[in-house]
Amino acid sequence: MNDNKTWSGRFNEPVSELVKKYTGSIDFDKRLAKWDIQGSLAHAQMLQQAGVLSEKDLNAINRGMEEIITEINNGKMQWLLDLEDVHMNIERRLTDKIGDAGKRLHTGRSRNDQVATDIRLWLRDEITQIQSLIQSLQSSLLDLAEQNADVVMPGFTHLQVAQPVSFGHHMLAYVEMLGRDYERMADCRKRVNRMPLGAAALAGTTYPVHREITAELLGFEQICQNSLDAVSDRDFAIEFTAAASLVMVHLSRLSEELILWMSPRFGFIDIADRFCTGSSIMPQKKNPDVPELVRGKTGRVIGHLTGLIMLMKSQPLAYNKDNQEDKEPLFDTVDTLIDTLRIYADMMRGVTVKPENMRAAVMQGFATATDLADYLVKKGMPFRDSHEVVAQAVRYADEQGVDLSELPLEVLQGFSDLIEADVYDVLTPEGSLNARNHLGGTSPQQVRFQVQRWRDLLA
Amino acid sequence: MNDNKTWSGRFNEPVSELVKKYTGSIDFDKRLAKWDIQGSLAHAQMLQQAGVLSEKDLNAINRGMEEIITEINNGKMQWLLDLEDVHMNIERRLTDKIGDAGKRLHTGRSRNDQVATDIRLWLRDEITQIQSLIQSLQSSLLDLAEQNADVVMPGFTHLQVAQPVSFGHHMLAYVEMLGRDYERMADCRKRVNRMPLGAAALAGTTYPVHREITAELLGFEQICQNSLDAVSDRDFAIEFTAAASLVMVHLSRLSEELILWMSPRFGFIDIADRFCTGSSIMPQKKNPDVPELVRGKTGRVIGHLTGLIMLMKSQPLAYNKDNQEDKEPLFDTVDTLIDTLRIYADMMRGVTVKPENMRAAVMQGFATATDLADYLVKKGMPFRDSHEVVAQAVRYADEQGVDLSELPLEVLQGFSDLIEADVYDVLTPEGSLNARNHLGGTSPQQVRFQVQRWRDLLA
Amino acid sequence: MNDNKTWSGRFNEPVSELVKKYTGSIDFDKRLAKWDIQGSLAHAQMLQQAGVLSEKDLNAINRGMEEIITEINNGKMQWLLDLEDVHMNIERRLTDKIGDAGKRLHTGRSRNDQVATDIRLWLRDEITQIQSLIQSLQSSLLDLAEQNADVVMPGFTHLQVAQPVSFGHHMLAYVEMLGRDYERMADCRKRVNRMPLGAAALAGTTYPVHREITAELLGFEQICQNSLDAVSDRDFAIEFTAAASLVMVHLSRLSEELILWMSPRFGFIDIADRFCTGSSIMPQKKNPDVPELVRGKTGRVIGHLTGLIMLMKSQPLAYNKDNQEDKEPLFDTVDTLIDTLRIYADMMRGVTVKPENMRAAVMQGFATATDLADYLVKKGMPFRDSHEVVAQAVRYADEQGVDLSELPLEVLQGFSDLIEADVYDVLTPEGSLNARNHLGGTSPQQVRFQVQRWRDLLA
Amino acid sequence: MNDNKTWSGRFNEPVSELVKKYTGSIDFDKRLAKWDIQGSLAHAQMLQQAGVLSEKDLNAINRGMEEIITEINNGKMQWLLDLEDVHMNIERRLTDKIGDAGKRLHTGRSRNDQVATDIRLWLRDEITQIQSLIQSLQSSLLDLAEQNADVVMPGFTHLQVAQPVSFGHHMLAYVEMLGRDYERMADCRKRVNRMPLGAAALAGTTYPVHREITAELLGFEQICQNSLDAVSDRDFAIEFTAAASLVMVHLSRLSEELILWMSPRFGFIDIADRFCTGSSIMPQKKNPDVPELVRGKTGRVIGHLTGLIMLMKSQPLAYNKDNQEDKEPLFDTVDTLIDTLRIYADMMRGVTVKPENMRAAVMQGFATATDLADYLVKKGMPFRDSHEVVAQAVRYADEQGVDLSELPLEVLQGFSDLIEADVYDVLTPEGSLNARNHLGGTSPQQVRFQVQRWRDLLA
Repeated sequence: MNDNKTWSGRFNEPVSELVKKYTGSIDFDKRLAKWDIQGSLAHAQMLQQAGVLSEKDLNAINRGMEEIITEINNGKMQWLLDLEDVHMNIERRLTDKIGDAGKRLHTGRSRNDQVATDIRLWLRDEITQIQSLIQSLQSSLLDLAEQNADVVMPGFTHLQVAQPVSFGHHMLAYVEMLGRDYERMADCRKRVNRMPLGAAALAGTTYPVHREITAELLGFEQICQNSLDAVSDRDFAIEFTAAASLVMVHLSRLSEELILWMSPRFGFIDIADRFCTGSSIMPQKKNPDVPELVRGKTGRVIGHLTGLIMLMKSQPLAYNKDNQEDKEPLFDTVDTLIDTLRIYADMMRGVTVKPENMRAAVMQGFATATDLADYLVKKGMPFRDSHEVVAQAVRYADEQGVDLSELPLEVLQGFSDLIEADVYDVLTPEGSLNARNHLGGTSPQQVRFQVQRWRDLLA
Repeated sequence: MNDNKTWSGRFNEPVSELVKKYTGSIDFDKRLAKWDIQGSLAHAQMLQQAGVLSEKDLNAINRGMEEIITEINNGKMQWLLDLEDVHMNIERRLTDKIGDAGKRLHTGRSRNDQVATDIRLWLRDEITQIQSLIQSLQSSLLDLAEQNADVVMPGFTHLQVAQPVSFGHHMLAYVEMLGRDYERMADCRKRVNRMPLGAAALAGTTYPVHREITAELLGFEQICQNSLDAVSDRDFAIEFTAAASLVMVHLSRLSEELILWMSPRFGFIDIADRFCTGSSIMPQKKNPDVPELVRGKTGRVIGHLTGLIMLMKSQPLAYNKDNQEDKEPLFDTVDTLIDTLRIYADMMRGVTVKPENMRAAVMQGFATATDLADYLVKKGMPFRDSHEVVAQAVRYADEQGVDLSELPLEVLQGFSDLIEADVYDVLTPEGSLNARNHLGGTSPQQVRFQVQRWRDLLA
Repeated sequence: MNDNKTWSGRFNEPVSELVKKYTGSIDFDKRLAKWDIQGSLAHAQMLQQAGVLSEKDLNAINRGMEEIITEINNGKMQWLLDLEDVHMNIERRLTDKIGDAGKRLHTGRSRNDQVATDIRLWLRDEITQIQSLIQSLQSSLLDLAEQNADVVMPGFTHLQVAQPVSFGHHMLAYVEMLGRDYERMADCRKRVNRMPLGAAALAGTTYPVHREITAELLGFEQICQNSLDAVSDRDFAIEFTAAASLVMVHLSRLSEELILWMSPRFGFIDIADRFCTGSSIMPQKKNPDVPELVRGKTGRVIGHLTGLIMLMKSQPLAYNKDNQEDKEPLFDTVDTLIDTLRIYADMMRGVTVKPENMRAAVMQGFATATDLADYLVKKGMPFRDSHEVVAQAVRYADEQGVDLSELPLEVLQGFSDLIEADVYDVLTPEGSLNARNHLGGTSPQQVRFQVQRWRDLLA
Repeated sequence: MNDNKTWSGRFNEPVSELVKKYTGSIDFDKRLAKWDIQGSLAHAQMLQQAGVLSEKDLNAINRGMEEIITEINNGKMQWLLDLEDVHMNIERRLTDKIGDAGKRLHTGRSRNDQVATDIRLWLRDEITQIQSLIQSLQSSLLDLAEQNADVVMPGFTHLQVAQPVSFGHHMLAYVEMLGRDYERMADCRKRVNRMPLGAAALAGTTYPVHREITAELLGFEQICQNSLDAVSDRDFAIEFTAAASLVMVHLSRLSEELILWMSPRFGFIDIADRFCTGSSIMPQKKNPDVPELVRGKTGRVIGHLTGLIMLMKSQPLAYNKDNQEDKEPLFDTVDTLIDTLRIYADMMRGVTVKPENMRAAVMQGFATATDLADYLVKKGMPFRDSHEVVAQAVRYADEQGVDLSELPLEVLQGFSDLIEADVYDVLTPEGSLNARNHLGGTSPQQVRFQVQRWRDLLA
């Protein structure tokens, strides 16, 4: 009997070395060891309760697994490519230690439901961590928002100056995005937290398995109701990667802004030196490497999403080896997301805001033109007409090279005789900000309200 | 004063014809007219309640909009490229009809929050329809599952015969997938159903808007809490397209199977002629065009997902014109998904099952080998050992060109003396099926249980 | 005999209306009519030369097709969904006109090789046009480069000021990119320009076809050497879309820069009003819509690339209906690319450069720090040491809020006694530019050299 | 002076450990060491010829690099994360060895042009290897094609039996696809093989570099003509990955077919045991793991393509840190492609063809119906009419459960009185095959011709 390969009784020749390397997964799936053992222990306990496994065997399995965990933690476990994957490596090591009881562990299950269970257990834990990191980044942003509720900056549309906004309000926009990301992770986690174990290879098993017991031991909220689906479903991986892609897209947007704002052309912020690097040739450079890399890594995660969807498209049921390719993109997505969230929460605490530069930028671009139009509307002019009147005034001011607030009253009145001296109140950035004092508006009062609302939600 | 362009007071030259065509959206966004008017009516009513609009103006707006709806329904509305988009076309038509009151409608809002509101209102309705179509397809599949609970077919892994499964069980796997799709649509809908209106261009508005009123009038569950986020968020479109991609992936898998099963090599099913087409050159052909196109259209929808994510990556806040490119992929995703679900529900009712061919296929491929291994385990042999014993038996039977059930008892006993005459009970497909009688298993009893469970859920 | 469906002799029931709509392609593939007829005429002539078709039949076909072309040009051709696609519509119309000769046209071919031929003929023409539009955009850029060879702007890395560059040099970077795009289109065109006709359904035909004749008549450079490959190959569509995606990526980069440069924070350029639009709410806005849309449409084209690749992945030979989904993304890619190139060539001629703002920006960011380091190296200091010395000088100047060129000589000498009075020559932007006077460098002399080199290449 | 960081003179605080790990590339870019040194040696030699470097320094550099190569080969080189990347690690090691001469090596270049050069040198070599592996796989397929020129199998369209084809002809379809892949690799290699060195950071250098010398020493065909483009161009990586994706798509198609053909439902081929694996639970299983993984890995490579394009989209010039994310997907694409091609060439030699099963499948599905239609056309019936006549005959035969060739003459004549006794000659698979004896047709004679043509091309 071939010592290395569990299926070899049926085979005439051993697997070629090239194929072993190409098809083996132990290099990357050993990462699942902790969760594989967790699943095996629950499976064994259930088998014993169902009368399939003796108490003696169960005890041997528990003892053996404990030793294996220690070996793994000590870096003493030898992972063999000949044994293909994490499942066979652990089972073989167990059998080396405890003999026949180890061979009985695989009763009533298959690697197909085993690996599906392992990934779900692992991903469930990672999502929990990601949710906590999202909240930690939200906290960083809330601090910035609160400290800068009164800081006025140009709100841009089309990267043209649109209207004055509070920098705190701008930070809160990202708190909202991350809030939706958190929700999506929570929604996804529900679907991750379902137990495939018991599906065996694809059809269920002939042993009297009690799946409720295993599910409860492993903390699964639901049990997969169809064995074929249970072993071939990778929806949860795709849904997670899509949710992760959205987190990255949000951070790519913030990164784009940080890079712009730190460019000397903007000069709105500075990022602490410990998050920047220099140049091997240009001695003056201080580069915002972290946000640039985040922007770049967004492509990486979305690439994984594309790869995973393509993997599943048109696959007939049930398990096909294609599915082994789910792990590396999923692992890398989780790692990239966790590293990025962690570094971002840290980095945002290293952002220095330069209010004077922001205010100077507000003054360039007629940011309060809409306020003037609204002013006219309130005096009775229909909006579309006031829009046109202000457009003419802007054109004139632009030709003169001055802001609207710098035009003399009589000049302004030349555009509409509805204009009176009180017009200058609405033409300052602060006036503009304070006037937008409704739910979701940019007034500092609303910013403070939202900071408090989020603080309560995160508490 | 230029009659066509709302912003032209500030401009020195009109937009070039090429640019009008390139930047105009009226060709595709007129589809949103119904929802645009719905949003405008609620906005006007709120403005009136807030004291910004007179009752007279409100009445004029309501009356004018009613006429416009009639014109649209009668195909009499003239959509002008010069007016760029659906919003300006409707507003201009309104002003033509009711004068200044029409010009007052845009008070306290911008096209940025208007279009975001329109898409959400529209998508909310489409998701409701999609959810209903998913359930309708589930019903078709449940009928098939119930009728074929006892039909035995080879369950495949790696497209090799693995174990016998019930055809009904196989259909139920897709019911499960669609069940998750339904959940994802519902989760996504929560995030679609939030109101951006009131965010105005990006910063909120100086008018005393009561967003709760508008939200209630429009049936929004929540109000977007940050104006910058409200106008630049397209998460909901990406999340929806990701969820739609998963529906399509599931249907691509079923399509792959239908195509395989209808191939003469399988001959497991036939699809009614009305869903098939022939060949312009080969007179004998009957091709499963519909599932092939569904497989192909899966790429189409996933392409839209890629496009939409790429659109948003690294976009600085707030609104940028890039976002106009969200509509066509989103529209096409919705149309493709709705057409596909509708045709699929119909087509599955036109599937004829050929049980005899399925059973013949089960008999080719040693589908009950695992049952023999389990039999030995129950007689006391460790699973890993029984696996090896059966592998040897399979190898022998394969060389003889017979099934395991066709080997004489004494031959079987040559592989293990634990084997007795009762072994033949577990070697039939039906025995194998019935033995997997636990939650999620393939036994006909479980299939009937699941059909009932789903019928109750869908009721 | 059913009048509408060519295969119906074998079918028991007509195709359902829903299916007709879902599987029909006439709505979009009628666009191929001109090339479909071109292919048919060559096929008919070859059949006649091969003795398969009589001269009388050939004359009838030629005459009939001429009439059909006129009908199409006059908008009088009626395209019927019942006839599925452009091929059947034209053939049926021909038969209506000329009787049996029309029915003989399809001898020795199938729609599978026919449609593959049509798309290649069409795409070949479109690529020729795209190549010409690429060169036209290059010409626009060369004009800008020449006019602005001496204009100094900050060259950025990481969006931080790096070194002074010539604006002309910057424009030339895009000329280079487009040059590679042109090459890729040419390389792709070679592979498009191969003839599938003669492959028939998948296996070739029993008629004595002379493929060399048809190929020569149609101007194909090569003949597809394998019938199975000929009807199932869509490489050319994917390769083209990948090449188109790269063009769009290049234009998305230029668009990003135009948007940045037109932002008041940069103020490097202005784009003529006819390429910009305003805001429905903010009267002062002038938005660079065209580059923003180009950025957005880049995602659209890349989405098509993803969709097309996904379409082909894992498709067994030979033709499958999935392939019908190749047309819409391909058509839209071509249209988007052509519109974008055309508008871009135009728009770049409407760009106004603001040299004074560019120069002011150069002076902010120590753009000549590397020049100082090089200066020290030339005086004998190892590069790594000079890099460090200059870093200290930059830090000092930054604290003082001045440029390096504004530091007094004795202060500079405090960092290294190798520094002498001639140091100020290398610290000006113009000095820095002129010093990089080698192939590919940014000196105005090199810019003029490259403009001439490209003018010669494009001539 | 900080010992670890080359830019630190300007910085107030060291880079955080988290950031070092996040931004460092040494873990993956050390793979480029060989090519980095190759580039440095050529750069040094050029500098010496240009009079920038002394001969003594050059000799020291050459000697030092030789030692470093040895250290790398012996695994003795210590790669330090503190030194960020492969470039700084090697330069620092060189300086440790040879002092100031090492510090002078970086004169006239930057890491921006250095890394661009390294990747191109490396990729150039990998493409050469890939081209050779493509040809090796073509050879495997040509052997199979030649051996099986006379083996008849059903040609499928829509996975329905279409017409008989030669198995050799089917293999040749893939030889054609790989031929195009080879062309694309060659076309891409032209654009890879261009030298960015000399572009320095982005603007060129103030040293009198002779780029022609370096280019010749490094075997580059062309020199990048624009320094900004040279450091920011990653087209070649995207173009390569697109070409690699097409290779994988082709292999995914062949994989799909191998999996189908090895399924017992088809039984057309067997794959040698050394390329297959078994099941941990089902003792009878022999799974085609390799083609399944290839199908799965296709998604992986296409995911990298998506990621790379997304990386470049909308990046302003010149170098941004985003670009560091180009390496891992590119490395993994190359590795995946090389491993896959190697294993495929090997595996195709382990394919056993089962002609009898193929022929049996031809007899099921009316594969010669088109031949009958052609027969009638040659007797004078218009093709569209003969198509309809045969459709009726097929329908009748299908109802009788027999092949067309099994219908008695008088029955056939009932469908058309043009049918005579010689009809049976065209109704056999072999007759059908031999009748398609034109360029690109499936007749065994054409298959042998194509095998010879390709053998000559590959010689």
